[in-house]
Amino acid sequence: MTESFTVIGIPGIPDIEPGDELADLICEAAAPIGVEPGDILVVAQKVVSKAEGAIAALRDVSPSEEAIRVADATGHTPALVELILSQSNRIVRMDQGVLITETIHGFVCANAGIDASNVLGDGVVTLLPVDADVSASGIRRALEARFGSRIGVIVSDSFNRPWRMGSVNVAIGVSGFYPLGDYRGQSDDHGVPLKSTMVSIADEIASAAQLVMGEFGRVPVAIVRGLEMTVGARDDNENGNGQALLRDAERDLFR
Amino acid sequence: MTESFTVIGIPGIPDIEPGDELADLICEAAAPIGVEPGDILVVAQKVVSKAEGAIAALRDVSPSEEAIRVADATGHTPALVELILSQSNRIVRMDQGVLITETIHGFVCANAGIDASNVLGDGVVTLLPVDADVSASGIRRALEARFGSRIGVIVSDSFNRPWRMGSVNVAIGVSGFYPLGDYRGQSDDHGVPLKSTMVSIADEIASAAQLVMGEFGRVPVAIVRGLEMTVGARDDNENGNGQALLRDAERDLFR
Repeated sequence: MTESFTVIGIPGIPDIEPGDELADLICEAAAPIGVEPGDILVVAQKVVSKAEGAIAALRDVSPSEEAIRVADATGHTPALVELILSQSNRIVRMDQGVLITETIHGFVCANAGIDASNVLGDGVVTLLPVDADVSASGIRRALEARFGSRIGVIVSDSFNRPWRMGSVNVAIGVSGFYPLGDYRGQSDDHGVPLKSTMVSIADEIASAAQLVMGEFGRVPVAIVRGLEMTVGARDDNENGNGQALLRDAERDLFR
Repeated sequence: MTESFTVIGIPGIPDIEPGDELADLICEAAAPIGVEPGDILVVAQKVVSKAEGAIAALRDVSPSEEAIRVADATGHTPALVELILSQSNRIVRMDQGVLITETIHGFVCANAGIDASNVLGDGVVTLLPVDADVSASGIRRALEARFGSRIGVIVSDSFNRPWRMGSVNVAIGVSGFYPLGDYRGQSDDHGVPLKSTMVSIADEIASAAQLVMGEFGRVPVAIVRGLEMTVGARDDNENGNGQALLRDAERDLFR
Protein backbone atom coordinates (compact mmCIF):
# COMPACT_ATOMS: atom_id res chain seq x y z
CA MET A 1 0.00 0.00 0.00
CA THR A 2 1.22 3.44 -0.95
CA GLU A 3 2.13 5.43 2.17
CA SER A 4 1.99 8.86 0.61
CA PHE A 5 1.69 10.56 -2.74
CA THR A 6 1.66 14.07 -4.13
CA VAL A 7 -0.56 15.81 -6.65
CA ILE A 8 1.10 18.60 -8.61
CA GLY A 9 -0.68 21.04 -10.89
CA ILE A 10 1.21 21.78 -14.11
CA PRO A 11 0.98 25.48 -14.92
CA GLY A 12 1.84 27.05 -18.23
CA ILE A 13 -0.32 25.14 -20.70
CA PRO A 14 -1.39 27.83 -23.18
CA ASP A 15 -4.93 28.20 -24.53
CA ILE A 16 -5.38 25.22 -26.85
CA GLU A 17 -6.72 25.53 -30.39
CA PRO A 18 -7.71 22.83 -32.86
CA GLY A 19 -4.64 21.22 -34.39
CA ASP A 20 -2.31 22.09 -31.52
CA GLU A 21 0.12 19.32 -30.59
CA LEU A 22 -1.19 18.91 -27.06
CA ALA A 23 1.36 16.25 -26.07
CA ASP A 24 4.23 18.54 -27.06
CA LEU A 25 2.74 21.43 -25.10
CA ILE A 26 2.34 19.18 -22.05
CA CYS A 27 5.96 18.01 -22.39
CA GLU A 28 7.13 21.58 -22.42
CA ALA A 29 4.99 22.62 -19.45
CA ALA A 30 5.96 19.52 -17.44
CA ALA A 31 9.70 19.80 -18.12
CA PRO A 32 10.51 22.00 -15.08
CA ILE A 33 8.85 19.44 -12.79
CA GLY A 34 9.91 16.41 -14.78
CA VAL A 35 8.02 13.19 -15.36
CA GLU A 36 9.11 10.23 -13.22
CA PRO A 37 8.52 6.49 -13.60
CA GLY A 38 5.11 5.57 -12.23
CA ASP A 39 3.66 9.07 -12.50
CA ILE A 40 0.02 9.26 -13.47
CA LEU A 41 -0.70 12.29 -15.64
CA VAL A 42 -4.27 13.60 -15.57
CA VAL A 43 -5.37 15.74 -18.52
CA ALA A 44 -8.67 17.61 -18.64
CA GLN A 45 -11.07 16.56 -21.39
CA LYS A 46 -11.48 20.10 -22.54
CA VAL A 47 -7.93 20.61 -23.78
CA VAL A 48 -7.95 17.15 -25.39
CA SER A 49 -11.18 17.90 -27.21
CA LYS A 50 -9.95 21.31 -28.35
CA ALA A 51 -6.65 19.96 -29.66
CA GLU A 52 -8.40 17.12 -31.48
CA GLY A 53 -10.96 19.49 -32.99
CA ALA A 54 -13.82 17.80 -31.14
CA ILE A 55 -15.72 21.08 -31.11
CA ALA A 56 -18.85 22.39 -32.76
CA ALA A 57 -20.42 25.79 -33.39
CA LEU A 58 -24.04 25.95 -32.28
CA ARG A 59 -24.88 28.33 -35.15
CA ASP A 60 -23.98 25.59 -37.68
CA VAL A 61 -26.46 23.11 -36.21
CA SER A 62 -29.90 22.46 -37.74
CA PRO A 63 -32.14 21.08 -35.00
CA SER A 64 -34.34 18.09 -35.82
CA GLU A 65 -37.97 17.82 -34.78
CA GLU A 66 -36.91 15.59 -31.90
CA ALA A 67 -34.31 18.12 -30.77
CA ILE A 68 -36.93 20.88 -30.76
CA ARG A 69 -39.26 18.68 -28.69
CA VAL A 70 -36.51 17.81 -26.16
CA ALA A 71 -35.43 21.46 -26.06
CA ASP A 72 -38.98 22.41 -25.10
CA ALA A 73 -38.96 19.84 -22.32
CA THR A 74 -35.56 20.75 -20.87
CA GLY A 75 -35.16 24.46 -21.51
CA HIS A 76 -31.94 23.89 -23.47
CA THR A 77 -31.61 25.49 -26.90
CA PRO A 78 -32.64 23.30 -29.87
CA ALA A 79 -29.14 23.54 -31.38
CA LEU A 80 -27.48 22.31 -28.18
CA VAL A 81 -30.00 19.49 -27.85
CA GLU A 82 -29.37 18.46 -31.47
CA LEU A 83 -25.65 18.20 -30.69
CA ILE A 84 -26.34 16.28 -27.47
CA LEU A 85 -28.57 13.78 -29.29
CA SER A 86 -26.00 13.39 -32.07
CA GLN A 87 -23.48 12.34 -29.40
CA SER A 88 -25.87 9.96 -27.63
CA ASN A 89 -27.20 6.44 -27.95
CA ARG A 90 -30.28 7.28 -25.91
CA ILE A 91 -31.84 9.56 -23.31
CA VAL A 92 -31.58 8.17 -19.76
CA ARG A 93 -33.46 10.94 -17.92
CA MET A 94 -35.03 14.22 -18.96
CA ASP A 95 -36.56 16.33 -16.22
CA GLN A 96 -36.15 19.54 -14.23
CA GLY A 97 -34.01 21.14 -16.93
CA VAL A 98 -31.57 18.23 -16.89
CA LEU A 99 -30.84 16.00 -19.88
CA ILE A 100 -28.91 12.84 -19.05
CA THR A 101 -27.93 10.55 -21.89
CA GLU A 102 -25.82 7.51 -22.59
CA THR A 103 -23.19 8.83 -24.97
CA ILE A 104 -21.96 7.11 -28.09
CA HIS A 105 -18.81 6.29 -26.07
CA GLY A 106 -20.86 4.61 -23.32
CA PHE A 107 -20.69 7.29 -20.61
CA VAL A 108 -23.86 8.27 -18.77
CA CYS A 109 -23.72 11.99 -18.02
CA ALA A 110 -25.50 15.30 -18.43
CA ASN A 111 -25.64 16.82 -21.92
CA ALA A 112 -23.48 14.06 -23.44
CA GLY A 113 -20.48 15.77 -21.86
CA ILE A 114 -20.85 18.81 -24.13
CA ASP A 115 -19.40 21.89 -22.49
CA ALA A 116 -19.77 25.51 -23.48
CA SER A 117 -17.50 27.07 -20.87
CA ASN A 118 -13.82 27.85 -21.35
CA VAL A 119 -13.95 26.98 -25.03
CA LEU A 120 -13.63 29.50 -27.82
CA GLY A 121 -16.52 31.83 -27.09
CA ASP A 122 -19.32 32.67 -29.52
CA GLY A 123 -21.38 29.50 -29.17
CA VAL A 124 -18.52 27.08 -29.73
CA VAL A 125 -18.70 24.00 -27.51
CA THR A 126 -16.52 20.94 -26.90
CA LEU A 127 -17.71 17.41 -27.54
CA LEU A 128 -16.09 14.50 -25.72
CA PRO A 129 -13.02 13.11 -27.51
CA VAL A 130 -13.95 10.51 -30.15
CA ASP A 131 -11.99 7.87 -28.22
CA ALA A 132 -10.51 9.16 -24.96
CA ASP A 133 -8.50 5.94 -24.52
CA VAL A 134 -6.73 6.62 -27.80
CA SER A 135 -6.19 10.22 -26.68
CA ALA A 136 -4.68 9.00 -23.40
CA SER A 137 -2.49 6.49 -25.19
CA GLY A 138 -1.12 9.09 -27.58
CA ILE A 139 -0.23 11.48 -24.77
CA ARG A 140 1.33 8.63 -22.78
CA ARG A 141 3.56 7.53 -25.66
CA ALA A 142 4.71 11.07 -26.37
CA LEU A 143 5.61 11.72 -22.73
CA GLU A 144 7.30 8.35 -22.31
CA ALA A 145 9.42 9.06 -25.38
CA ARG A 146 10.35 12.50 -24.15
CA PHE A 147 11.08 11.69 -20.50
CA GLY A 148 12.09 8.03 -20.71
CA SER A 149 9.67 7.03 -17.93
CA ARG A 150 6.85 4.50 -18.03
CA ILE A 151 3.76 6.38 -16.88
CA GLY A 152 -0.01 6.26 -16.85
CA VAL A 153 -2.34 8.83 -18.39
CA ILE A 154 -5.95 9.68 -17.58
CA VAL A 155 -8.21 11.93 -19.65
CA SER A 156 -10.70 13.27 -17.12
CA ASP A 157 -14.03 15.07 -17.05
CA SER A 158 -16.22 16.27 -14.20
CA PHE A 159 -19.57 14.50 -13.99
CA ASN A 160 -22.51 15.12 -11.74
CA ARG A 161 -24.02 12.17 -9.89
CA PRO A 162 -27.33 10.91 -8.58
CA TRP A 163 -28.04 11.33 -4.88
CA ARG A 164 -25.05 13.52 -4.08
CA MET A 165 -24.44 17.22 -4.64
CA GLY A 166 -21.59 18.54 -6.74
CA SER A 167 -19.55 17.11 -9.55
CA VAL A 168 -16.49 14.93 -9.18
CA ASN A 169 -13.76 14.33 -11.72
CA VAL A 170 -13.75 10.87 -13.33
CA ALA A 171 -11.54 9.06 -15.82
CA ILE A 172 -13.04 8.92 -19.33
CA GLY A 173 -9.82 7.71 -20.95
CA VAL A 174 -7.02 5.61 -19.44
CA SER A 175 -3.71 4.33 -20.74
CA GLY A 176 -0.78 2.58 -19.12
CA PHE A 177 -2.35 1.03 -16.03
CA TYR A 178 -5.32 -0.94 -14.79
CA PRO A 179 -8.00 1.54 -13.73
CA LEU A 180 -9.76 -0.87 -11.36
CA GLY A 181 -8.32 -2.38 -8.20
CA ASP A 182 -9.81 -5.86 -8.19
CA TYR A 183 -10.04 -7.53 -4.80
CA ARG A 184 -12.62 -10.15 -5.75
CA GLY A 185 -12.04 -13.36 -3.83
CA GLN A 186 -9.93 -11.66 -1.18
CA SER A 187 -10.84 -11.67 2.49
CA ASP A 188 -10.08 -9.67 5.59
CA ASP A 189 -8.12 -10.89 8.62
CA HIS A 190 -11.21 -12.75 9.83
CA GLY A 191 -11.76 -14.53 6.53
CA VAL A 192 -14.79 -12.38 5.70
CA PRO A 193 -14.98 -11.37 2.01
CA LEU A 194 -14.25 -7.71 1.43
CA LYS A 195 -17.25 -5.42 0.97
CA SER A 196 -16.01 -3.37 -1.95
CA THR A 197 -14.31 -5.84 -4.21
CA MET A 198 -13.62 -3.44 -7.04
CA VAL A 199 -12.22 0.03 -6.46
CA SER A 200 -12.15 2.62 -9.20
CA ILE A 201 -8.57 3.72 -8.71
CA ALA A 202 -8.60 5.77 -11.92
CA ASP A 203 -11.66 7.76 -10.84
CA GLU A 204 -10.12 8.36 -7.42
CA ILE A 205 -6.92 9.61 -9.08
CA ALA A 206 -8.94 11.87 -11.38
CA SER A 207 -10.80 13.28 -8.37
CA ALA A 208 -7.54 13.90 -6.52
CA ALA A 209 -6.16 15.73 -9.55
CA GLN A 210 -9.23 17.96 -9.79
CA LEU A 211 -8.31 19.49 -6.44
CA VAL A 212 -5.36 21.22 -8.14
CA MET A 213 -6.91 21.60 -11.60
CA GLY A 214 -9.97 23.56 -10.51
CA GLU A 215 -13.17 24.26 -12.35
CA PHE A 216 -11.86 27.27 -14.21
CA GLY A 217 -9.74 25.07 -16.42
CA ARG A 218 -6.58 27.12 -16.13
CA VAL A 219 -4.56 24.17 -14.84
CA PRO A 220 -5.66 21.45 -17.28
CA VAL A 221 -2.90 18.96 -16.38
CA ALA A 222 -1.77 17.46 -13.08
CA ILE A 223 0.82 14.86 -12.14
CA VAL A 224 0.00 12.31 -9.43
CA ARG A 225 3.32 11.10 -8.07
CA GLY A 226 4.20 8.42 -5.58
CA LEU A 227 1.34 5.95 -5.96
CA GLU A 228 2.70 2.44 -6.01
CA MET A 229 1.02 1.65 -9.30
CA THR A 230 2.06 -0.85 -11.89
CA VAL A 231 2.33 1.18 -15.04
CA GLY A 232 3.08 -0.10 -18.49
CA ALA A 233 -0.11 -2.18 -18.82
CA ARG A 234 -0.78 -2.70 -22.49
CA ASP A 235 -3.49 -0.69 -24.19
CA ASP A 236 -4.63 -3.75 -26.10
CA ASN A 237 -5.65 -5.44 -22.85
CA GLU A 238 -9.36 -4.84 -22.40
CA ASN A 239 -8.86 -4.25 -18.66
CA GLY A 240 -6.34 -1.51 -19.29
CA ASN A 241 -8.50 1.30 -20.62
CA GLY A 242 -11.25 3.68 -19.62
CA GLN A 243 -13.95 1.53 -21.18
CA ALA A 244 -13.27 -0.97 -18.38
CA LEU A 245 -14.82 1.59 -16.02
CA LEU A 246 -18.23 1.39 -17.70
CA ARG A 247 -20.84 -0.80 -16.06
CA ASP A 248 -22.63 -3.12 -18.49
CA ALA A 249 -26.08 -1.73 -19.18
CA GLU A 250 -27.69 -5.04 -18.25
CA ARG A 251 -25.92 -5.04 -14.87
CA ASP A 252 -26.99 -1.44 -14.21
CA LEU A 253 -30.12 -0.73 -12.16
CA PHE A 254 -30.32 2.95 -13.12
CA ARG A 255 -30.79 3.12 -16.92
CA MET B 1 -5.78 27.44 -6.68
CA THR B 2 -3.67 24.93 -4.81
CA GLU B 3 -0.54 24.04 -6.78
CA SER B 4 0.26 20.79 -5.03
CA PHE B 5 -0.80 18.75 -2.06
CA THR B 6 0.22 15.51 -0.38
CA VAL B 7 -1.81 12.58 0.94
CA ILE B 8 -0.19 10.70 3.83
CA GLY B 9 -1.44 7.41 5.26
CA ILE B 10 -1.26 7.25 9.05
CA PRO B 11 -0.06 3.83 10.16
CA GLY B 12 -0.27 2.45 13.64
CA ILE B 13 -3.97 2.72 14.45
CA PRO B 14 -4.68 -0.45 16.43
CA ASP B 15 -7.73 -2.66 15.94
CA ILE B 16 -10.61 -0.61 17.30
CA GLU B 17 -13.16 -2.00 19.75
CA PRO B 18 -16.38 -0.46 21.04
CA GLY B 19 -15.67 2.21 23.63
CA ASP B 20 -12.15 2.95 22.41
CA GLU B 21 -11.27 6.64 22.42
CA LEU B 22 -10.70 6.85 18.67
CA ALA B 23 -9.66 10.51 18.69
CA ASP B 24 -6.94 9.77 21.26
CA LEU B 25 -5.67 6.83 19.24
CA ILE B 26 -5.56 9.00 16.10
CA CYS B 27 -3.66 11.71 18.01
CA GLU B 28 -1.09 9.17 19.09
CA ALA B 29 -0.70 7.65 15.63
CA ALA B 30 -0.52 11.06 13.93
CA ALA B 31 2.00 12.52 16.39
CA PRO B 32 5.14 11.44 14.47
CA ILE B 33 3.81 13.16 11.32
CA GLY B 34 2.15 16.02 13.14
CA VAL B 35 -1.05 17.83 12.29
CA GLU B 36 -0.65 21.18 10.57
CA PRO B 37 -3.05 24.09 10.12
CA GLY B 38 -5.31 23.43 7.14
CA ASP B 39 -4.81 19.67 7.12
CA ILE B 40 -7.86 17.61 6.21
CA LEU B 41 -7.96 14.35 8.15
CA VAL B 42 -9.91 11.51 6.53
CA VAL B 43 -11.12 8.72 8.82
CA ALA B 44 -12.68 5.49 7.58
CA GLN B 45 -16.27 4.88 8.64
CA LYS B 46 -15.41 1.45 9.92
CA VAL B 47 -13.20 2.56 12.79
CA VAL B 48 -15.65 5.32 13.68
CA SER B 49 -18.55 2.87 13.80
CA LYS B 50 -16.55 0.37 15.83
CA ALA B 51 -15.42 2.94 18.38
CA GLU B 52 -18.97 4.31 18.72
CA GLY B 53 -20.43 0.83 19.10
CA ALA B 54 -22.43 1.16 15.88
CA ILE B 55 -22.22 -2.59 15.38
CA ALA B 56 -24.66 -5.46 15.44
CA ALA B 57 -24.48 -9.24 15.69
CA LEU B 58 -26.51 -10.97 12.98
CA ARG B 59 -27.38 -13.82 15.38
CA ASP B 60 -29.27 -11.36 17.63
CA VAL B 61 -31.55 -10.19 14.81
CA SER B 62 -35.11 -11.48 14.36
CA PRO B 63 -36.08 -11.01 10.72
CA SER B 64 -39.52 -9.59 9.96
CA GLU B 65 -41.81 -10.95 7.24
CA GLU B 66 -40.69 -8.13 4.97
CA ALA B 67 -37.01 -8.91 5.61
CA ILE B 68 -37.59 -12.57 4.70
CA ARG B 69 -39.34 -11.49 1.47
CA VAL B 70 -36.52 -9.08 0.52
CA ALA B 71 -33.93 -11.71 1.44
CA ASP B 72 -35.60 -14.11 -0.97
CA ALA B 73 -35.47 -11.50 -3.72
CA THR B 74 -31.84 -10.47 -3.19
CA GLY B 75 -30.05 -13.56 -1.93
CA HIS B 76 -28.95 -11.79 1.25
CA THR B 77 -29.62 -13.48 4.59
CA PRO B 78 -32.87 -12.47 6.34
CA ALA B 79 -30.94 -11.20 9.38
CA LEU B 80 -28.76 -8.92 7.28
CA VAL B 81 -31.81 -7.63 5.38
CA GLU B 82 -33.58 -6.93 8.66
CA LEU B 83 -30.62 -4.81 9.76
CA ILE B 84 -30.49 -3.05 6.40
CA LEU B 85 -34.20 -2.20 6.54
CA SER B 86 -33.88 -1.01 10.14
CA GLN B 87 -31.25 1.48 8.93
CA SER B 88 -33.28 2.62 5.89
CA ASN B 89 -36.09 4.99 5.06
CA ARG B 90 -36.94 3.05 1.90
CA ILE B 91 -35.70 0.69 -0.77
CA VAL B 92 -34.47 2.51 -3.90
CA ARG B 93 -33.61 -0.57 -6.04
CA MET B 94 -33.67 -4.30 -5.45
CA ASP B 95 -32.42 -6.48 -8.30
CA GLN B 96 -29.61 -8.81 -9.35
CA GLY B 97 -28.58 -9.51 -5.78
CA VAL B 98 -28.20 -5.82 -5.02
CA LEU B 99 -30.20 -3.95 -2.38
CA ILE B 100 -29.92 -0.17 -2.58
CA THR B 101 -31.68 1.91 0.03
CA GLU B 102 -31.97 5.45 1.26
CA THR B 103 -30.58 5.26 4.76
CA ILE B 104 -32.03 6.91 7.83
CA HIS B 105 -29.15 9.40 7.51
CA GLY B 106 -30.09 10.25 3.90
CA PHE B 107 -27.37 8.37 2.01
CA VAL B 108 -28.31 6.24 -0.99
CA CYS B 109 -26.05 3.20 -1.06
CA ALA B 110 -25.94 -0.58 -1.12
CA ASN B 111 -27.01 -2.43 2.03
CA ALA B 112 -27.51 0.79 4.00
CA GLY B 113 -23.74 0.96 4.35
CA ILE B 114 -23.64 -2.14 6.54
CA ASP B 115 -20.29 -3.90 6.27
CA ALA B 116 -19.31 -7.35 7.43
CA SER B 117 -15.62 -7.25 6.50
CA ASN B 118 -12.80 -6.20 8.81
CA VAL B 119 -15.10 -6.02 11.81
CA LEU B 120 -15.02 -8.43 14.70
CA GLY B 121 -15.67 -11.74 12.99
CA ASP B 122 -18.49 -14.14 13.82
CA GLY B 123 -21.35 -12.35 12.10
CA VAL B 124 -20.70 -8.95 13.63
CA VAL B 125 -21.22 -6.06 11.21
CA THR B 126 -20.81 -2.29 11.35
CA LEU B 127 -23.68 0.12 10.83
CA LEU B 128 -23.03 3.65 9.65
CA PRO B 129 -22.34 6.08 12.51
CA VAL B 130 -25.55 7.53 13.97
CA ASP B 131 -24.45 11.03 12.89
CA ALA B 132 -21.16 11.07 10.99
CA ASP B 133 -21.04 14.88 11.14
CA VAL B 134 -21.01 14.70 14.93
CA SER B 135 -18.33 12.00 14.72
CA ALA B 136 -16.22 14.22 12.45
CA SER B 137 -16.74 17.21 14.72
CA GLY B 138 -15.63 15.28 17.81
CA ILE B 139 -12.47 14.04 16.15
CA ARG B 140 -11.74 17.53 14.80
CA ARG B 141 -12.05 19.16 18.22
CA ALA B 142 -9.84 16.56 19.88
CA LEU B 143 -7.10 16.93 17.27
CA GLU B 144 -7.30 20.72 17.28
CA ALA B 145 -6.93 20.71 21.07
CA ARG B 146 -3.96 18.34 20.93
CA PHE B 147 -2.06 19.89 18.01
CA GLY B 148 -3.20 23.51 18.18
CA SER B 149 -4.07 23.58 14.47
CA ARG B 150 -7.40 24.41 12.84
CA ILE B 151 -8.18 21.46 10.58
CA GLY B 152 -10.98 19.74 8.70
CA VAL B 153 -12.17 16.18 9.25
CA ILE B 154 -14.00 13.82 6.91
CA VAL B 155 -15.57 10.50 7.89
CA SER B 156 -15.51 8.47 4.68
CA ASP B 157 -17.02 5.32 3.24
CA SER B 158 -16.66 3.62 -0.12
CA PHE B 159 -19.86 3.58 -2.17
CA ASN B 160 -20.61 1.93 -5.47
CA ARG B 161 -22.22 4.01 -8.19
CA PRO B 162 -24.60 3.70 -11.10
CA TRP B 163 -23.11 3.49 -14.59
CA ARG B 164 -19.49 3.14 -13.53
CA MET B 165 -17.53 0.15 -12.23
CA GLY B 166 -15.84 0.10 -8.88
CA SER B 167 -16.42 1.91 -5.63
CA VAL B 168 -15.07 5.33 -4.75
CA ASN B 169 -14.60 6.81 -1.33
CA VAL B 170 -17.03 9.60 -0.40
CA ALA B 171 -17.52 11.90 2.59
CA ILE B 172 -20.38 10.83 4.87
CA GLY B 173 -19.40 13.20 7.66
CA VAL B 174 -17.64 16.56 7.44
CA SER B 175 -16.48 19.09 10.00
CA GLY B 176 -14.42 22.24 9.80
CA PHE B 177 -14.77 23.23 6.15
CA TYR B 178 -17.29 23.69 3.37
CA PRO B 179 -17.54 20.39 1.47
CA LEU B 180 -18.83 21.96 -1.76
CA GLY B 181 -16.97 24.40 -3.98
CA ASP B 182 -19.73 26.67 -5.17
CA TYR B 183 -19.07 28.47 -8.45
CA ARG B 184 -22.67 29.38 -9.24
CA GLY B 185 -22.87 32.68 -11.05
CA GLN B 186 -19.22 32.59 -12.07
CA SER B 187 -18.11 32.66 -15.69
CA ASP B 188 -15.09 31.71 -17.73
CA ASP B 189 -12.76 34.12 -19.56
CA HIS B 190 -15.33 34.40 -22.36
CA GLY B 191 -18.18 35.23 -20.01
CA VAL B 192 -19.77 31.80 -20.48
CA PRO B 193 -21.23 30.34 -17.25
CA LEU B 194 -19.21 27.44 -15.89
CA LYS B 195 -20.51 23.96 -16.64
CA SER B 196 -20.03 22.38 -13.24
CA THR B 197 -21.08 25.04 -10.83
CA MET B 198 -20.80 22.91 -7.70
CA VAL B 199 -17.82 20.66 -7.05
CA SER B 200 -17.84 18.08 -4.30
CA ILE B 201 -14.47 18.92 -2.82
CA ALA B 202 -15.06 16.69 0.20
CA ASP B 203 -15.81 13.64 -1.95
CA GLU B 204 -12.73 14.32 -4.06
CA ILE B 205 -10.59 14.56 -0.91
CA ALA B 206 -12.11 11.32 0.41
CA SER B 207 -11.31 9.61 -2.92
CA ALA B 208 -7.74 10.90 -2.84
CA ALA B 209 -7.32 9.55 0.69
CA GLN B 210 -8.61 6.12 -0.30
CA LEU B 211 -5.56 5.69 -2.52
CA VAL B 212 -3.41 5.37 0.62
CA MET B 213 -6.05 3.84 2.91
CA GLY B 214 -6.80 0.83 0.75
CA GLU B 215 -9.70 -1.57 0.89
CA PHE B 216 -8.17 -3.80 3.55
CA GLY B 217 -8.78 -1.17 6.17
CA ARG B 218 -5.35 -1.40 7.74
CA VAL B 219 -4.67 2.31 7.19
CA PRO B 220 -7.96 3.81 8.40
CA VAL B 221 -6.72 7.40 8.62
CA ALA B 222 -5.01 9.71 6.13
CA ILE B 223 -3.94 13.33 6.22
CA VAL B 224 -4.45 15.50 3.13
CA ARG B 225 -1.94 18.33 3.43
CA GLY B 226 -1.37 21.42 1.32
CA LEU B 227 -4.83 22.13 -0.06
CA GLU B 228 -5.56 25.82 0.18
CA MET B 229 -8.76 25.25 2.08
CA THR B 230 -10.47 27.57 4.48
CA VAL B 231 -10.82 25.51 7.62
CA GLY B 232 -12.59 26.51 10.77
CA ALA B 233 -16.07 26.71 9.23
CA ARG B 234 -18.59 26.34 12.00
CA ASP B 235 -20.43 23.07 12.43
CA ASP B 236 -23.66 24.91 13.11
CA ASN B 237 -23.62 26.33 9.58
CA GLU B 238 -25.84 24.12 7.45
CA ASN B 239 -23.36 24.33 4.56
CA GLY B 240 -20.49 23.09 6.71
CA ASN B 241 -21.37 19.43 7.16
CA GLY B 242 -21.74 16.16 5.28
CA GLN B 243 -25.51 16.53 5.01
CA ALA B 244 -24.85 19.41 2.59
CA LEU B 245 -23.60 16.75 0.14
CA LEU B 246 -27.00 15.07 -0.10
CA ARG B 247 -29.17 15.94 -3.07
CA ASP B 248 -32.76 16.75 -2.16
CA ALA B 249 -34.95 13.79 -3.07
CA GLU B 250 -37.27 16.02 -5.12
CA ARG B 251 -34.33 17.31 -7.16
CA ASP B 252 -33.05 13.78 -7.77
CA LEU B 253 -34.00 11.94 -10.96
CA PHE B 254 -32.84 8.52 -9.72
CA ARG B 255 -34.95 7.66 -6.66
